[in-house]
Amino acid sequence: MPTSPTIATVSSHSALQIMKGAKDEGFNTLLICDKKREKFYKRFNLVDEFLLVDEFKDILDEKIQKQLNDKNCVLIPHGSFVEYIGGRETMRVNVPMFGNKKVLEWEADRRKSYEWFKKAGIKVPHSFLKPDEIDRLTLVKLFGAKGGRGYSLVKSSEEFKEKVGHFDSEKMQLQEYILGTRFYPHFFYSPLTGENELTGIDLRYESNADGLPRMPADFYMAPTYVVTGNFPITMRESLLPDVFEIADKLTETSKKLFPPGLTGPYSLEMVCNDKLELYVFEISARIVAGTNVGIPGSPYSYLKYGKEMSMGRRIAMEIKKAISENRLDDVVS
Amino acid sequence: MPTSPTIATVSSHSALQIMKGAKDEGFNTLLICDKKREKFYKRFNLVDEFLLVDEFKDILDEKIQKQLNDKNCVLIPHGSFVEYIGGRETMRVNVPMFGNKKVLEWEADRRKSYEWFKKAGIKVPHSFLKPDEIDRLTLVKLFGAKGGRGYSLVKSSEEFKEKVGHFDSEKMQLQEYILGTRFYPHFFYSPLTGENELTGIDLRYESNADGLPRMPADFYMAPTYVVTGNFPITMRESLLPDVFEIADKLTETSKKLFPPGLTGPYSLEMVCNDKLELYVFEISARIVAGTNVGIPGSPYSYLKYGKEMSMGRRIAMEIKKAISENRLDDVVS
Amino acid sequence: MPTSPTIATVSSHSALQIMKGAKDEGFNTLLICDKKREKFYKRFNLVDEFLLVDEFKDILDEKIQKQLNDKNCVLIPHGSFVEYIGGRETMRVNVPMFGNKKVLEWEADRRKSYEWFKKAGIKVPHSFLKPDEIDRLTLVKLFGAKGGRGYSLVKSSEEFKEKVGHFDSEKMQLQEYILGTRFYPHFFYSPLTGENELTGIDLRYESNADGLPRMPADFYMAPTYVVTGNFPITMRESLLPDVFEIADKLTETSKKLFPPGLTGPYSLEMVCNDKLELYVFEISARIVAGTNVGIPGSPYSYLKYGKEMSMGRRIAMEIKKAISENRLDDVVS
Repeated sequence: MPTSPTIATVSSHSALQIMKGAKDEGFNTLLICDKKREKFYKRFNLVDEFLLVDEFKDILDEKIQKQLNDKNCVLIPHGSFVEYIGGRETMRVNVPMFGNKKVLEWEADRRKSYEWFKKAGIKVPHSFLKPDEIDRLTLVKLFGAKGGRGYSLVKSSEEFKEKVGHFDSEKMQLQEYILGTRFYPHFFYSPLTGENELTGIDLRYESNADGLPRMPADFYMAPTYVVTGNFPITMRESLLPDVFEIADKLTETSKKLFPPGLTGPYSLEMVCNDKLELYVFEISARIVAGTNVGIPGSPYSYLKYGKEMSMGRRIAMEIKKAISENRLDDVVS
Repeated sequence: MPTSPTIATVSSHSALQIMKGAKDEGFNTLLICDKKREKFYKRFNLVDEFLLVDEFKDILDEKIQKQLNDKNCVLIPHGSFVEYIGGRETMRVNVPMFGNKKVLEWEADRRKSYEWFKKAGIKVPHSFLKPDEIDRLTLVKLFGAKGGRGYSLVKSSEEFKEKVGHFDSEKMQLQEYILGTRFYPHFFYSPLTGENELTGIDLRYESNADGLPRMPADFYMAPTYVVTGNFPITMRESLLPDVFEIADKLTETSKKLFPPGLTGPYSLEMVCNDKLELYVFEISARIVAGTNVGIPGSPYSYLKYGKEMSMGRRIAMEIKKAISENRLDDVVS
Repeated sequence: MPTSPTIATVSSHSALQIMKGAKDEGFNTLLICDKKREKFYKRFNLVDEFLLVDEFKDILDEKIQKQLNDKNCVLIPHGSFVEYIGGRETMRVNVPMFGNKKVLEWEADRRKSYEWFKKAGIKVPHSFLKPDEIDRLTLVKLFGAKGGRGYSLVKSSEEFKEKVGHFDSEKMQLQEYILGTRFYPHFFYSPLTGENELTGIDLRYESNADGLPRMPADFYMAPTYVVTGNFPITMRESLLPDVFEIADKLTETSKKLFPPGLTGPYSLEMVCNDKLELYVFEISARIVAGTNVGIPGSPYSYLKYGKEMSMGRRIAMEIKKAISENRLDDVVS
């Protein structure tokens, strides 16, 4: 890449933050933009060039990819990017993409991510193989259910039969319910320094689960878990060494499972019970929307950098550093 | 106005923010201050001049107004200002006031604000005209009830009869209950640029509604909704284009209903259900206390301005710009 | 102290913030560090010197204290410091410690802190002397219970007998339950200026109490209150004059009870009911972990200082000012 790359992403999720971070580090920006959203993104004056599309999947079109490559783009994938385009399709996109694309299949497939967690030796909620094994509070999860619709909570195998009935191992997961507080720490793993950095922590604000508690109990409805926003939050400092150890185990293990492993931004879904034990539920192996609470910075990025540093800016900083060290290939795939 | 105006407000609500914003933009500040609160406001060293009063209503006194005009004041009305002085009385205050005073009667009168929302074509919760129509979860609201005291939640017309009894259309409103997450986005409409800007978002922290969920369900009490504080929050980015569209519809419609329409700071009370549909419940057509979470700035004001920008400062910036463009009359009334 | 002191603390709680604040004000830093946490604290690059220990109690070792004194250290005690080392033992530590050590016994002993509150004339929840007196919602607290385990909520003396049974005044406290919203304002009292400053406000995020409301009511479990994190929050501005008045009463009274009284950072645990009345439950007479939400600053510290100012930095600033005024003895003990 002879000239400085253009930082590009798709018009949703954390695009404002990514564009702003790129501008703060001196890059040109390009937004692959749903036509209906052009007006919205123009309000913030952060995009140097709009590439208007009818739908996000148009990015799979070779002509679009050629345009992006002609402009020397580095694509920043985010949650909506992967969701709308699909994990496998994303891997076929022939434009330099920030991070290691191979992680997408390890993140998307529950069995693979479970294998990853197990090899890393981190604490996860117990999974029961069949209803007869249920001996504690258990969440019956449906694979692929949007926003947790149809999930059930049961205390015993009897209650499973009563509430759910037939067990279909292809469609259901029986996961130990961990009661506690939720945390979504945001990490950045730099292949240039070999270090995990904590850039912030958020808590998801979910509809209707976070609206239900304000209603009288006799109006109870089954909760759904559609993420609608995020709160900034800090975590008890004595838990953070454990959180970093979990992060280190995950990135180290990933180097063996899919070299060069997990790089760039990612986030963990954690629950902390009242014995201060941390359980990992999920990994999101790209920038998460919760990082929006850390614009322009968070307590943790300030402690690390002594200045404002959002995840979007951290990404741009890494690209800049990689270029100056002639190692761009180490941060894109 | 030959010399630079003094920015003035009343000692409550968001006064600290307004004073600080004015100082940051280089204005002199004056606080119309309840005598008992002088000590408190002096702690922050943001007020150049205190005008001590026994009660906020003293501002209706012509002598006080003359003093304010002699000092070339621009008054910034906020929620407590309007609440203590009264919407109609506020309209009689003969001192230049930031924003368009006419909006106060459209905001205060439920029927008028409903008309405004309908003309703007935005989604609001359904209102039933009589109990027989109730076919879903419905909140029985009492007009003028402080903090939601005496509100009831009912599922059907039968339950209405049982729980509430007689229906008095002069005193009660039957409003569809929208289950979901609440958001209070803060907007600033600039008549100088013709644009809506998002300066932040908060979530209200209400007593006792937000204390109740920590109690066992068998101690259930009827919730009340007295605002005691605010949390900073971010909203799912893909919802923001809708939020801006709602804001645009409201400001455009307001230009026809009460020219020059809604200008300056305002906020919407929104609920997002688990289908990601947004409902508007109320508009607060002046600076809201929730903007205090955005001192010195918020993620959204940083994305827009690239620096710290509270709503208080945004107001002062508008006055400064209006003066430099010789258009002060366009931002005050 | 001929040369500039080194700011020292113990590796937990708010140590990152204290170290960062010290660096921001130009001090050298030393961390008395649990060996297992060295790797964690090295990630942030805020510590000039590590003093590795096997356990925090090693600080009671005279050799360690000599090392600290040779390096001209000022120790900043925080919540974990006091918890792990013990209030009485902390008082024996022969190294200059920020604040007035005498406060530790007034904070730790419920009877003494109750006496302090009473003398200050601040509103606290009512304590019943025996179950027969219970005439409203009452929390049965067990002295020394970690995280509120074993607490019960009862409505009447009958319910007390049913749920709890025998009353043991040595082990139990019968405290009126105040339903409302919780606030933890962070104060700094400067003996150099004689003023109370508000540096921020947080809300504690507790396991499992804040996880329970997301479960169906029929899975009810007794809540526990283990602090796992903190949210930033702002408080209704019209409540703040009352909050400051409470703070002033507490610091003024403390000067008589244990001269020179409470100095430096402290925090109050407050509940606000739906009549906007504030009750004080507890005082933490040193830096609280909730101040971590105010890194690098909070709305309130910005209003006061016009720049980023965490509690950790405020402490360092006070030490710097005391040195320049030759009054270090007034801020340490």
